[in-house]
Amino acid sequence: MVLGMIKEHGLLIVISGPSGSGKTSITKILRETEANLNFSISATTRPPRPDELDGVDYYFFSEVEFQHKIEAGEFAEWAVYGSHHYGTLKKTLNDTLQSGKDILLEIEVQGAIQLRKLYPDGIFIFIIPPSQASLEARLRNRRTESEDDIRRRLLIAKSEISYINNYDYIVFNYDNQIEKAVENVRCIIAAVRCRVNRYILRQIQKEFNL
Amino acid sequence: MVLGMIKEHGLLIVISGPSGSGKTSITKILRETEANLNFSISATTRPPRPDELDGVDYYFFSEVEFQHKIEAGEFAEWAVYGSHHYGTLKKTLNDTLQSGKDILLEIEVQGAIQLRKLYPDGIFIFIIPPSQASLEARLRNRRTESEDDIRRRLLIAKSEISYINNYDYIVFNYDNQIEKAVENVRCIIAAVRCRVNRYILRQIQKEFNL
Repeated sequence: MVLGMIKEHGLLIVISGPSGSGKTSITKILRETEANLNFSISATTRPPRPDELDGVDYYFFSEVEFQHKIEAGEFAEWAVYGSHHYGTLKKTLNDTLQSGKDILLEIEVQGAIQLRKLYPDGIFIFIIPPSQASLEARLRNRRTESEDDIRRRLLIAKSEISYINNYDYIVFNYDNQIEKAVENVRCIIAAVRCRVNRYILRQIQKEFNL
Repeated sequence: MVLGMIKEHGLLIVISGPSGSGKTSITKILRETEANLNFSISATTRPPRPDELDGVDYYFFSEVEFQHKIEAGEFAEWAVYGSHHYGTLKKTLNDTLQSGKDILLEIEVQGAIQLRKLYPDGIFIFIIPPSQASLEARLRNRRTESEDDIRRRLLIAKSEISYINNYDYIVFNYDNQIEKAVENVRCIIAAVRCRVNRYILRQIQKEFNL
């Protein structure tokens, strides 16, 4: 039985990359098409939007609750964006991984660097635009921000790209070819599941009476 | 330009596994469908069949020529099957790899073990039947051999499976689901091409003015 040959602990797959890389769009497509992947739910202090459900879209916490959890070391990573806290609870990840299921997490670069320390065996995928020109065009098209804001976001994106060597895989997200990037991420997950260290070799040997 | 960001040296991809694993059928499908993969051509002392061309299907050598090349250390691996020599010339692999192209090699387990020593960075994929029962059924269906021959082939296949921990990836080839195995091999190749160590990070940083 092949199932018994696979290690019981699931895989942590982290999709990250600078603002403008397309990581959120890629994750959205995977969420809609990959039945055998679990997706991490983030915690936030931002108030829920009308269509958002607690425990489905986010875990919604008050500032006080969030602070308590930070102090209790319950977060695998957390950060402040705008005026709100965002983070990933260790429990969210560990419960899924320990049940033998793989979990995918889409996250900013700073969060990924924090996660790498806690989960050195995780699979860290960096999504990157094909060029500086493409990155700039995407940041410009995205929002109606001032030139100063765009410059600032470009600088942040560039500083994020400098962390690329902390990742295991690089996926270029070419303009108007997102399906190609999605396919590469899909392949990385499929390939990692075939790695020899994912298998209990003793079980395979047993099946073949070795 | 993304092309300049990829390392100049190609990847060696080795598909191997016991007799009955389906490695030859899988490689045949890849050969027909993967345009951007090169396939290694073996050398042999077996005489060409009527439809076989020298330098296309095999490099055909006389016994004397083959022996000379063994002594000159020109083979990356070689072995005797039946009454003929088979092998892979180092030049075949290195010329392709140095031109920046990836090369796929389908090979018996003993040859793969020899190759691993010369090409530690190669990608070694082990194709395996899902069970002992399946392996046995495939060896039985395959040829009209005596029960003794089948027993012998089964023992060889099992001893080959004991080398599984020399490989990087394991691909189960389920009965009547060869396309699934092909897809996994395809994904492994796509994923390896996305590995961070395949990229010249300095070139990426240069593109983004870092």
